[in-house]
Amino acid sequence: MSGLFITLEGGEGAGKTTVANSVIERLSLLGIKAIYTREPGGIKIAEKIREVILDRNHTEMDGRTEALLYAAARRQHLVEKVRPAMEKGYVVLCDRFVDSSIVYQGYARGIGMDEVRKINEFAIEGFMPKLTIFFDIPPQEGLKRISENKGREVNRLDLEDLSFHELVYEGYKKQVLTDPSRIISVDATKSIKELTNEVCALILDQIKG
Amino acid sequence: MSGLFITLEGGEGAGKTTVANSVIERLSLLGIKAIYTREPGGIKIAEKIREVILDRNHTEMDGRTEALLYAAARRQHLVEKVRPAMEKGYVVLCDRFVDSSIVYQGYARGIGMDEVRKINEFAIEGFMPKLTIFFDIPPQEGLKRISENKGREVNRLDLEDLSFHELVYEGYKKQVLTDPSRIISVDATKSIKELTNEVCALILDQIKG
Repeated sequence: MSGLFITLEGGEGAGKTTVANSVIERLSLLGIKAIYTREPGGIKIAEKIREVILDRNHTEMDGRTEALLYAAARRQHLVEKVRPAMEKGYVVLCDRFVDSSIVYQGYARGIGMDEVRKINEFAIEGFMPKLTIFFDIPPQEGLKRISENKGREVNRLDLEDLSFHELVYEGYKKQVLTDPSRIISVDATKSIKELTNEVCALILDQIKG
Repeated sequence: MSGLFITLEGGEGAGKTTVANSVIERLSLLGIKAIYTREPGGIKIAEKIREVILDRNHTEMDGRTEALLYAAARRQHLVEKVRPAMEKGYVVLCDRFVDSSIVYQGYARGIGMDEVRKINEFAIEGFMPKLTIFFDIPPQEGLKRISENKGREVNRLDLEDLSFHELVYEGYKKQVLTDPSRIISVDATKSIKELTNEVCALILDQIKG
């Protein structure tokens, strides 16, 4: 595989999507083939799975069901989109991946980080990102950003209360420690411009090897 | 838990559903509270998941995606239907369970029986049936029955060719050997009446302890 697989992680409203889009633009200007994606990423089967997960009528969904559904959508997105792009030599910037499940379902929902990691290993078969960038922002600030962003669709996760988002933040802090050579934290309270610079620099470091 | 959890396994057209329904009727006559169910079993979330799995347009579905989806539907059906019925003291007769996934995805699709078993352990958390009845019938005969049963809706699995169903049969034979104290084989080429008698006897043995 000649491409480079990079994932972005962090709580709601951390600015991952906005930064990713401006990073892709910057890389293109540098002549680097790069795409931004996130599960389900336009993959028909994964879209259908995501509809089940995010349906606001499904409040009775069990945490383990949710974790298995995320792993299923991840698998299909990986097979149909990420791997083919990697084979064509693209930098693939993926918004959320395995770490999200380990933190959201494993830690915040209390299923167990290790158990959730295992079902995700089944889904990805060792296909881990070379680099993961954690957007570090206190949950209150992230949620404030969401409430100010009127264009954003409210989903089932946004409806969780602050204590859930605090658990998510705590979980990310733990997860970063489990794999410090892969996961790098950036201060996501900075401006989009500063973050774009920082993320681009991290990616260019990887490309240079 | 005061109920009794029993699962039925076997290839397509083995007669599980027909026999199960007449077993339930017989148990009712004996004053035993019993229900028949199968995933997704009217559980809204599990129904939605099954729609994704069986959609005949989804021929590009990856085997691991499929295995994760089955595990997700299983989890929700277990939590919302099987466990509550068990708590009320019912005999729960479930058409297909973990063994189906181990055989269909693990063996016939080649993912690995042990790997599929592990994600299913995540889904069920040790909630295994007390007894599993394997309906043993050569795949050719099972498929012949299906083709003669015009009322039955054709799904994605029925469209697989004979060699797939032969692998399924082979997989079941292996799976029976892994847990002979739980899985009991019955000769499913017998008549519905004979099978009903045999299955009822096995269940009554369990109830008597």
